[in-house]
This record gives sequence, structure tokens and C-alpha cells, in this order.
Amino acid sequence: MEDENQSTSDVHLTKSIRCIVKLGGSAITCKTELERINEESLETVSQHLRQAMMVPGSSGGKVLGMDWSKRPGFAETSCGVDDFRDQPALGFNHFIVVHGAGSFGHFQASKSGVHKGSLNQPLVKAGFVATRISVTSLNLEIVRALAREGVPSLGLSPFACGWLTRERNISSADVSTVAKAIDSGFVPVLHGDAVFDASQGCTILSGDVIIRHLAEQLKPEFVVFLTDVLGVYDRPPTEPNAVLLREIEVREDGSWSVVKPALENTNKKVEITVPAHDTTGGMRTKISEAAMIAKLGIDVYIVKVATSHSLRALSGELKDNIPEDWLGTVIRFLR
Amino acid sequence: MEDENQSTSDVHLTKSIRCIVKLGGSAITCKTELERINEESLETVSQHLRQAMMVPGSSGGKVLGMDWSKRPGFAETSCGVDDFRDQPALGFNHFIVVHGAGSFGHFQASKSGVHKGSLNQPLVKAGFVATRISVTSLNLEIVRALAREGVPSLGLSPFACGWLTRERNISSADVSTVAKAIDSGFVPVLHGDAVFDASQGCTILSGDVIIRHLAEQLKPEFVVFLTDVLGVYDRPPTEPNAVLLREIEVREDGSWSVVKPALENTNKKVEITVPAHDTTGGMRTKISEAAMIAKLGIDVYIVKVATSHSLRALSGELKDNIPEDWLGTVIRFLR
Repeated sequence: MEDENQSTSDVHLTKSIRCIVKLGGSAITCKTELERINEESLETVSQHLRQAMMVPGSSGGKVLGMDWSKRPGFAETSCGVDDFRDQPALGFNHFIVVHGAGSFGHFQASKSGVHKGSLNQPLVKAGFVATRISVTSLNLEIVRALAREGVPSLGLSPFACGWLTRERNISSADVSTVAKAIDSGFVPVLHGDAVFDASQGCTILSGDVIIRHLAEQLKPEFVVFLTDVLGVYDRPPTEPNAVLLREIEVREDGSWSVVKPALENTNKKVEITVPAHDTTGGMRTKISEAAMIAKLGIDVYIVKVATSHSLRALSGELKDNIPEDWLGTVIRFLR
Repeated sequence: MEDENQSTSDVHLTKSIRCIVKLGGSAITCKTELERINEESLETVSQHLRQAMMVPGSSGGKVLGMDWSKRPGFAETSCGVDDFRDQPALGFNHFIVVHGAGSFGHFQASKSGVHKGSLNQPLVKAGFVATRISVTSLNLEIVRALAREGVPSLGLSPFACGWLTRERNISSADVSTVAKAIDSGFVPVLHGDAVFDASQGCTILSGDVIIRHLAEQLKPEFVVFLTDVLGVYDRPPTEPNAVLLREIEVREDGSWSVVKPALENTNKKVEITVPAHDTTGGMRTKISEAAMIAKLGIDVYIVKVATSHSLRALSGELKDNIPEDWLGTVIRFLR
């Protein structure tokens, strides 16, 4: 098996990547209901991605759907072959999508303890199968939603890509298939997945860890985390006095502090909540992963899905200057 | 990128593989109706696989389903966590499943010409996306059907595994993830897929070609092709005087001849039909691929799905002797 350094040398990316976007589980699924997609949110985010991908000045024309499969409850779909024949090959910005599990996968993983390993136990082995079924069915639905909006999306399961962990950290994760898909003009869609772990047999590889790995290897211009709240708050956002943290700076040593708004005590720990059913660490993982990405010199935006704020972030509007009316959290390296 | 020979050396398979089984597209889907699974056939073949996997003497006990996801039209599924806790870890024979596309994927591929390449054309690019959506949705349904019958199945898309072709032949197809899944006690489920091709951009990699590659690399005891007719006939099986070819011998030079039944003219070409919508070559590919597998010293059985004959083939009953009452085609190397 290749190790991480070797696989890096395999990457032949001729096109630069504009953005890696995380579709948070809570942003695209109904967290309180088992395996229920937030269809409205997913449709809007798919439209936003299409808009953000278009190079300014290139007329997108009619949206030509790329999901030609039957959908339950819908009349037979048209594949519009003739429309494609008239379509010029468009230039566009390159995106990678990574999504979390939300109400898919978490139930199966936590019931069986897949994240703790021990594949020789029948329950864990069954849970590994059940978790992959659940997360890959979500992946398929997201790929289809993107394709319906004309985004040339290709599902890529980390497990199938051969990605491996050791002591729950990535030990081998060849990104050459991701890079090839990008170079051919597609949008790879990866997801949190159950994977094999060299030390404990198996574990859950979270979408956030995948994002960090892809950012290191493929150096996108910026990273956007789409979530179900406006950004990162100083305490659980449901609390009455919760303050949205607008700007966080990360230092060379990986520590970070809030620079906007100026808090009374900037050293105080930001309270974060971790939902009980979240086997991958929730917001705590998100912030530390985001800080690690920012340390690479890549700006990270954490923003509410399906809003004008997320569209602006995806479109690259925030790169030089964060407008006052933009709501979200930017995490940046202090140069 | 690794070439084929290098990836061979990566395979660390500690367990021998009993059987690679091909679920033919026509065996598990309704070929005449777009994207319609033959549910009855798929359920029976899943039960057969479970039976064939069990080591004689090991009591399988209650069938514990491993698909814990919601299904449209069904009440919420139970995940039976407690039942798994009481389940001893069972020994079983190792299987790999590869399935064709049937009424999934072929429509999308042939409408857009994915098999002919030219990804820079918008129609081909869209067809690549649409084809992968269709074949991966079939893969998911097959994985789920197997899991419901207690078969620990894991979907593995050749595209996601990074498999590549050049001039439509496999140029790189690392089987290490397949081998790892086997070694951990799972049943990998691969499928015909749209893949990148170094010379023409993209193509369709058929399930039959995948089987041949896996057989070469992983040396199973035998290979079973499940189809919708009893086996290979001397002419289209719908014709009144069609004769089932019971035994075909393959010679060192790759040529083959029918040894049972003794035909009037054993040198005459076996007529074969290729359905117009089949972009991967149909029966012609199947026979020549089967002959190439047999040349490795691996017996190949072509048999009708969901019958007592297919169950006997899967169970390994035919290895030493083909009983007179077994209906199907065996393809063997003439030693």
C-alpha cells in the first residue's frame, strides 16, 4: 500500500481548484428524522453551486439536467440529448463537494460502534455494512440533486477509493481519482464513510477530516462549510445572548483567537455543543479542522446553507474583503 | 499511477476466494423496462448466496439483516442489535459479486456514446454522469438486497476504486481494496461502470471484463455467471431447435469447442445474439471472457439465476463431477 507521501506525488492536477465545499449533515438532512433529506435546502445549494461554478461572462444558458434516471413519484425523466448537442463546452471554476451524514449513517454507526472498531464482532461487522448502505444512499441522492441542476457530479466513496486510517487518523488516501475527475471537468462528491483502520479494524472517517486532507493535497483557493446556523457562535446558538464570531485568526502554532467582534475576554473558551448521536465529534472537530486548513493559507468560511451569504462565499466574493453585511464566520491564517 | 503488474504485488490476500459470481443484467433486472429490478430474482439469488457462503456444519441460525436503512413503502426497519450480540462469528466461504447493468445504465450510456469516449463533448460528459448515477443506484439496491439476507456486502465502484482503461482495455485496476474487504470477511459487490480511458477519455468497463481481471488477480476456485437462460445455446435460445451446450473445452491457444452434447459439426460457429442496446458486447463478450478465465484453470459455470441449478453451482457441488440432471454450461480448460 502506498503511504500518504507517495500518493501525493501521484497527483497530476492541471487545473487549480477554486473551492472545496462541505455540505454539513445538518444543512442537507433533517437531523431529527432518520434518513430524511432536506430537499429544499439541497435543491437551493445545488443551484448555488452551479452559479458559483460558472465563469463570469460565460452564458450558462438553459440548465441541462444530468440525472436521467427514474425518480420515485416522478414521471419518466427526459434526457434532453438534443439540447446537449447544441451546448457549447463551458469553462467553469473547479469545485469538490464533501458531505457529512446528518441523519444518515450516524444511527447505524453509533448503534454498532463502528467508530470504535473490532470488526470480528458480528454487530460491528453488520454495522459497517449498514453504515455504508446509509451514507452511500445519501451520497447518491446528493449526486442526483447536483446533476439535476446541471452540475457534472460524480460520487466517490472514500472506502471505495481505498482510503485507510491508523489509530483513526488518515494513513493512506490517494487523491488521484479526485484529481482525474477534476481535470476531466467533473465535480467529485465525497462523503464521511466507514473505512478500514490498521490498528482497530475499522472506524468512521468524518467529512471534516476528508476536507482537511483534500485541502492539504489539492490546495483550493478557499473552503466553505455550509451549516444550519449562520456560523460559529461563542455559545450554543440557541442561547439568547449567543454572539456570532465573524472572524477568527489562526496562528502558526495552530492556536486561534476571535478578532471580530472584540469579545470581553478573548481568551475564553468558546462553548460548543456536541450532539449525542454525532460519532465524529461535531463542532469541536469542525473548528479545529477549519483552523488546520486556515494554517495552510486557505481561507475558510463557515456559513448558513441556502442563503445569500453562502452564495456569496461560494462565488469567491469574500476573498479580498469581507463586507459588513455578510453574515458568517471567516477563519484565516495570521500572516 | 501504478500499472497492472505493480498492483498485483500489492495484493495481500490471506483467505482463498471460493467463487466470483456475476449477476447478469438480464438476471436481476427487467431488461425491457427502464431501471426496473427483478425483485423476486434478486431476493432468491441473495438467499442462494447466503446458503452457498455457509461452511457445512456451521449453523447459520436466524438470518440477521444488515440493511438498517429506510425503504420506500416499508415500515421503519429494525436493526436487531441484540440479536447480533448473541451471534457467534461464523466461518464462511469467500465470495465476490460483480453485476451487470441490465436496464440500468445501458440507456444512458448508449444515448450519449460514453463507450466511444470524447469527454470534451457536453453530451458525453453528461452521459458519463447519468450512467454512473444509474449503475450506482442499481449497485446500492443489490448491496441492500444481499445485506437484508445477511450477506455482509460492500459496494465498490470500479470508477471510485480508480480503475482505468487504455483503448478500452484495463490499464490499471488495483484490487487491494477488494482483497482487504475479503480478508475482513465482507463480500465486495462491483459493477460495470463508466471509467476514464487514457486514449479516448472515457469508456464503459463491462462486468465481464471486471470478472476476468479479478479472476486473474485473485484466483477463485470457480466462477459462476448467472443469466436469464439455462446456459449457452448453439443458436438464440428462443429458436425452436436451440441446443443447450453442456460442456465447452478451452485449449491452450484460447480456442474452444463443444464437447457435450456432440454436435453434428463441432467446428460450426455458435450463433449468438447481441441486443441492440447492449453497449458492452453481450454474449459474444461473455463466452470469450469465460474462455479466458477457464484458461487460468478456473472452471466457469453459466447457469440460470434463481434455480436449483444455480444454487448447486454456487455451492461448489460441480467441482469434481457434473451430474446428468444439472442444467447449465460448464467451460473448462483442457489440461
